[in-house]
Amino acid sequence: MKKPLMILVCLVVVAAALGGAYAQFAKPEDAIKYRKAVMFLIAQHFGRMGAMVKEQTPYNQPVFAQHAIVVETLARLPWEAMMVPGTDKGDTTLNAKVFAKPAEFNQAAQTFEAQSAKLVSTAQSGDFTAIKTQFGEVGKSCKACHDQFRSR
Amino acid sequence: MKKPLMILVCLVVVAAALGGAYAQFAKPEDAIKYRKAVMFLIAQHFGRMGAMVKEQTPYNQPVFAQHAIVVETLARLPWEAMMVPGTDKGDTTLNAKVFAKPAEFNQAAQTFEAQSAKLVSTAQSGDFTAIKTQFGEVGKSCKACHDQFRSR
Repeated sequence: MKKPLMILVCLVVVAAALGGAYAQFAKPEDAIKYRKAVMFLIAQHFGRMGAMVKEQTPYNQPVFAQHAIVVETLARLPWEAMMVPGTDKGDTTLNAKVFAKPAEFNQAAQTFEAQSAKLVSTAQSGDFTAIKTQFGEVGKSCKACHDQFRSR
Repeated sequence: MKKPLMILVCLVVVAAALGGAYAQFAKPEDAIKYRKAVMFLIAQHFGRMGAMVKEQTPYNQPVFAQHAIVVETLARLPWEAMMVPGTDKGDTTLNAKVFAKPAEFNQAAQTFEAQSAKLVSTAQSGDFTAIKTQFGEVGKSCKACHDQFRSR
């Protein structure tokens, strides 16, 4: 295939792929609203686990495990909405670095997903010392991503 | 146990139970924000399934099944936040009937949860005709609850 044609084909393929993803949001504001809803819910459930880890509320193994499952499910959701072009403007704390460093962003997102998934199995074990440690690992993965990709 | 003491014990037990539940929201506005976030996300994922059911977007079995799992997980979350006293006031469409008819509200919520769970197994079967039918059942359970407990 000649080089200009090859480039054109690649552009069309990329545009179709992006179109498929971004078409899920009727307008950029919906993508912002979507990811903010996910992040608010993650923060709520993470906070409830945190209160148990810090022994501010009584540790309840099945309840903790349920929170961990909710966070793991939610952890998979917000990334696509964060990659919608132009959505670093408006009612958002998204940093434009997301668009400049997509590989690093993807890596940070995947680390959070992996640590959240590990917290589910640790929570099910009921070993409170291990749970505290793994909860800390999830928290580190939140912070690592926020430090790079969230504006204050 | 003497009757006045019995009543007092019951009141303390109920207060403790409610306190445990409602203490999860620092303020009533957080309960409203929480349930609105859940409902917005349910609507988004339900809408994406709806577009496939109506054949506006191509049917993709694994993607559909993922949306069904997300909705099932989210379906378990919003009820407690809807039962926080006084949260029929403010930026909300919650109808005060939730407080007047808790048993009916609970039944409507459970029907939605059950129909959403059934959609997960139907979605995993990949039988598109059965999926369309079960998607309709979930929709009916949304409407039944909204008709009774959501204000316009």
